[in-house]
Amino acid sequence: MKKNETTGVTAPIGFEAAGIHCGIKKAGNLDLALITSEVTGPIAGVFTQNQVAAAPVQLDRIHLRTRRGRAIIVNSGNANACTGKTGLAAARTMASEVARRLSVPLHQVFVGSTGVIGRILPIDRITAGIPVLISRLSRQGGTHAARAILTTDLRPKTVAVRTRIGGTVVTIGGIAKGSGMIHPDMATMLAYLTTDAAILPATLQHALKSAVDQSFNCITVDGDTSTNDTVLCLANGLAKNPQIRQGTRDYRLFVQALTEASQQLALAICRDGEGVTKVVKILVRGATTVAAAKRVAVTVATSNLVKTALFGEDANWGRVMGAIGRSGVPMNQDRVSVSFDNVLMVRRGMGTGLAMERKIDQVFKRKEFTITIGLGQGRAEAHMWTTDLSYDYVRINASYRS
Amino acid sequence: MKKNETTGVTAPIGFEAAGIHCGIKKAGNLDLALITSEVTGPIAGVFTQNQVAAAPVQLDRIHLRTRRGRAIIVNSGNANACTGKTGLAAARTMASEVARRLSVPLHQVFVGSTGVIGRILPIDRITAGIPVLISRLSRQGGTHAARAILTTDLRPKTVAVRTRIGGTVVTIGGIAKGSGMIHPDMATMLAYLTTDAAILPATLQHALKSAVDQSFNCITVDGDTSTNDTVLCLANGLAKNPQIRQGTRDYRLFVQALTEASQQLALAICRDGEGVTKVVKILVRGATTVAAAKRVAVTVATSNLVKTALFGEDANWGRVMGAIGRSGVPMNQDRVSVSFDNVLMVRRGMGTGLAMERKIDQVFKRKEFTITIGLGQGRAEAHMWTTDLSYDYVRINASYRS
Repeated sequence: MKKNETTGVTAPIGFEAAGIHCGIKKAGNLDLALITSEVTGPIAGVFTQNQVAAAPVQLDRIHLRTRRGRAIIVNSGNANACTGKTGLAAARTMASEVARRLSVPLHQVFVGSTGVIGRILPIDRITAGIPVLISRLSRQGGTHAARAILTTDLRPKTVAVRTRIGGTVVTIGGIAKGSGMIHPDMATMLAYLTTDAAILPATLQHALKSAVDQSFNCITVDGDTSTNDTVLCLANGLAKNPQIRQGTRDYRLFVQALTEASQQLALAICRDGEGVTKVVKILVRGATTVAAAKRVAVTVATSNLVKTALFGEDANWGRVMGAIGRSGVPMNQDRVSVSFDNVLMVRRGMGTGLAMERKIDQVFKRKEFTITIGLGQGRAEAHMWTTDLSYDYVRINASYRS
Repeated sequence: MKKNETTGVTAPIGFEAAGIHCGIKKAGNLDLALITSEVTGPIAGVFTQNQVAAAPVQLDRIHLRTRRGRAIIVNSGNANACTGKTGLAAARTMASEVARRLSVPLHQVFVGSTGVIGRILPIDRITAGIPVLISRLSRQGGTHAARAILTTDLRPKTVAVRTRIGGTVVTIGGIAKGSGMIHPDMATMLAYLTTDAAILPATLQHALKSAVDQSFNCITVDGDTSTNDTVLCLANGLAKNPQIRQGTRDYRLFVQALTEASQQLALAICRDGEGVTKVVKILVRGATTVAAAKRVAVTVATSNLVKTALFGEDANWGRVMGAIGRSGVPMNQDRVSVSFDNVLMVRRGMGTGLAMERKIDQVFKRKEFTITIGLGQGRAEAHMWTTDLSYDYVRINASYRS
């Protein structure tokens, strides 16, 4: 077996990948990616909760029923969403072409698409590209695959995390795309994780859900997903570790590693966000429930007024207070506290004065910092990562299609 | 009786107003307004649902219990929010100074504030200004009051609507401020309506709630109000119309006029929004309930990706579909239709082709247009007005305090 690449989907044992230009994007830009495992293994998936689901998402949900996977094919430049039966047929053709040429069952091939919504997928270019794509499959192809799934992203996003399960080293690799994700409004986030761990399908699904909740779901809003959002994790067991079972220490170690990999990709998406100059963590403490804490965190994290203040490095903490109050979570404003990194700016619902304002002016100049909100009600907490809203955000999104 | 001004709060019989500079804002900018009625009358109010409520809102809620009003005093430049007991005392002082000098009961004086959150109100400047303000009260003072309540607004917003109740002409006048309102995120919206109609307090409250639901609440999101949002309507009965009673034709005429006045002010707020270049109506039809229709309309209207596409005149209808799908309202995407003015771009969940895309390119160039969304489920409908998200929005909000 060749030496592993150090990062990305081919970092675990037994995975190959490739990325090519098949003609969806303008010449030279990679737009078709393939990830394969040497052997069929368990696959887990978490998809958009958007009711306008793209064709590939509809197809993957069906294929996921058997929870076995072998290959993932992804195109960029076209979302294959709002394309009706034609779109669903195109997604199925993508899968069946790969299945036929790799001689694997159709339902073991998963499909992803990202790009403009509502355009018919140029399926002929994709089917023409698939043999080329397969011929390029290699242990080194992970970096090409990482590039081929990008749209407005500035940088490819790859990860590899290793952990020891029952004395055996297990590797989790991953790639992601998404720079619109930073506004939880609607932009595709795709992440593909691979692992050589031996794990049962149901256990893998459970682990993936847990990891996504602590990572990708902390940079977006529940329900505020796009038509195409997809996270898949394909496991092949080639690390030959003792099979991971739920409720064991090994399981916790695996979830920890999977969460770490997912958080690295999620934060990479934030940092590479459209027009982003800052990444800020919103930590909410002292809530009665985790759901309430999350709701406050989400409301602050998605406030345009908070996000423009971050961009302007304008320490306008009143906007944070306003967002907290409109979250819909019952609270007593006289118990609310707000700190910017270690500077306590609001105590018992009141500002702590101009001297403190001058201190948080300095905090707002940092590239990354934490806003800690105390509700003074209970012991539950939650966090979100957010970014600023800049001129470049508007520029990029005002002319996405052109 | 002197001739009415043609528009604003002094348009109805028996109202006077004034606006002065008392020293909260930089020199020369009006920052203190007063509206008074010759006689005490019914008053109705609708306030922010934000749980972080500013001191003047807390005070007004108490004063509104007796549903009788005589005067409204409003300062701009400081929101008197997140200011604790000191802030509440300051709001009470504003009211009591006006009450004492006009010799009216304290609870007949209402208070409004708008501006930066979390700063202590310079109450001495306000109390010093009140005698001057009272001395300037006049039938012509409405335009000064309209200017004195503004913050980042570019233009004062005034309205007057006349209707006939039982043979008698009744006038409704109003002023409003709010340019941050266009993003429902958090920015103060204040509106003060006056009328010479004879109407019982409970009936006036009912009428105001109805008018606000069809106007100011269509340019913001329920619950997404600021710490200071306030709409008050003060009636003095001096038109001497037969008293308006709920459930009558007169009541419907009055609500119609009050709604018209409120919509004019609400749309003026939209058009004057921070960095706004477009005002777009989102009309949702074919829902099973009004609440569901409203939820879809709000989700589309507040989508940053939709709003940046409006600014860029980029007819990216996929973003509208994405927002519809993530609204949380159960739907069948194959029944969804979307028109831009009279161009049907999405039918049964699918794009109608490139020729139509070229047509909606033209629609996107209009200053005002309507996006009509059909859900194909039922007969309920709702609408929202939204605006685009521009460079200027970011510029204004990135440095609001400086």
